[in-house]
Amino acid sequence: MGQIAQSHSCTVEAVLIANQAESFITSRLPQIDVTYGGIAGDRHFGLTKRAGVRESMYPRGMEIFNRRQITVVSMEECAAVAEALGVPEIRPEWLGANVVVRGFPDLTRLSNGSRILFPSGAGLLCEGENQPCRYPGDVIQSHYPDVAKLSARFVQHAQRRRGIICIVERPGAIAAGEEATVTVYED
Amino acid sequence: MGQIAQSHSCTVEAVLIANQAESFITSRLPQIDVTYGGIAGDRHFGLTKRAGVRESMYPRGMEIFNRRQITVVSMEECAAVAEALGVPEIRPEWLGANVVVRGFPDLTRLSNGSRILFPSGAGLLCEGENQPCRYPGDVIQSHYPDVAKLSARFVQHAQRRRGIICIVERPGAIAAGEEATVTVYED
Repeated sequence: MGQIAQSHSCTVEAVLIANQAESFITSRLPQIDVTYGGIAGDRHFGLTKRAGVRESMYPRGMEIFNRRQITVVSMEECAAVAEALGVPEIRPEWLGANVVVRGFPDLTRLSNGSRILFPSGAGLLCEGENQPCRYPGDVIQSHYPDVAKLSARFVQHAQRRRGIICIVERPGAIAAGEEATVTVYED
Repeated sequence: MGQIAQSHSCTVEAVLIANQAESFITSRLPQIDVTYGGIAGDRHFGLTKRAGVRESMYPRGMEIFNRRQITVVSMEECAAVAEALGVPEIRPEWLGANVVVRGFPDLTRLSNGSRILFPSGAGLLCEGENQPCRYPGDVIQSHYPDVAKLSARFVQHAQRRRGIICIVERPGAIAAGEEATVTVYED
């Protein structure tokens, strides 16, 4: 019936920004401010972006609306992927995460159209699974040089566990340590 | 696996704009130009909107991102709802449709993240089912005053057949009579 069937609370474990030159790796901050288009100064900020391999229905490089504004991952899924890969940990930084939640384990299965709402009033609109690609796998590999084939294995083992992409639906601040509410949209 | 599993072609039966004062009813044009935010001059145009009953997770009237930029319906679903209600036809105008397609019957079941692509290069990003509400039912009732309880029955019988809402992902023109391509995103 397309209703909001359930609400869940979770904890914001960390908030991060991709503000390093030539890198998607993110860095922790006490708080981020999200606005329409994402986080000012972040690599993925903007109401528009250039079409890439994930938008292969458009000519490469064409300007399109940016629905990949914010990347959210869960601590539990990071731990599950680390376990599957046989490494001690996968840090959200290595995945380019902007928001890390704890207490909503199956984040990647969150349906499109669901929201994550924060105490400031900020709201993120779920645009679906973030398809794993090799680049975070390469970063993981660089941290564990003695473990074989992590780049390729990451793509395989991170399916449905690599978190989601979001549009900023309502601007506001998001702070590490606060509680958030997930409103699940059920089709 | 979150891939584009299938592409379908369909025909643009009509394009329409909601440019009448105080009404969501749309009017046909030979062509519309979509840009980020929708169709300039349309009632639903804008990168932001005011939160309403469909966004009850936000305080009423708060400015939020507008994911309800474009309304798309299919001729086949309009006909199916008309049949279920026992009326000769339901015109897309009465539903406030901006784009009407023919040849992709189960439009409302199109998954979020799918696209409708047009010859100009314009692209619409599916944001999911348009939940039926009473207002179009009231319009239908006004056209068939002798048929009982059409407003309420519309809400019931239009479930999963009332079309979808879209974000403009790539600006461009959309013209009546042209072919479009639907790329289905499969989760």
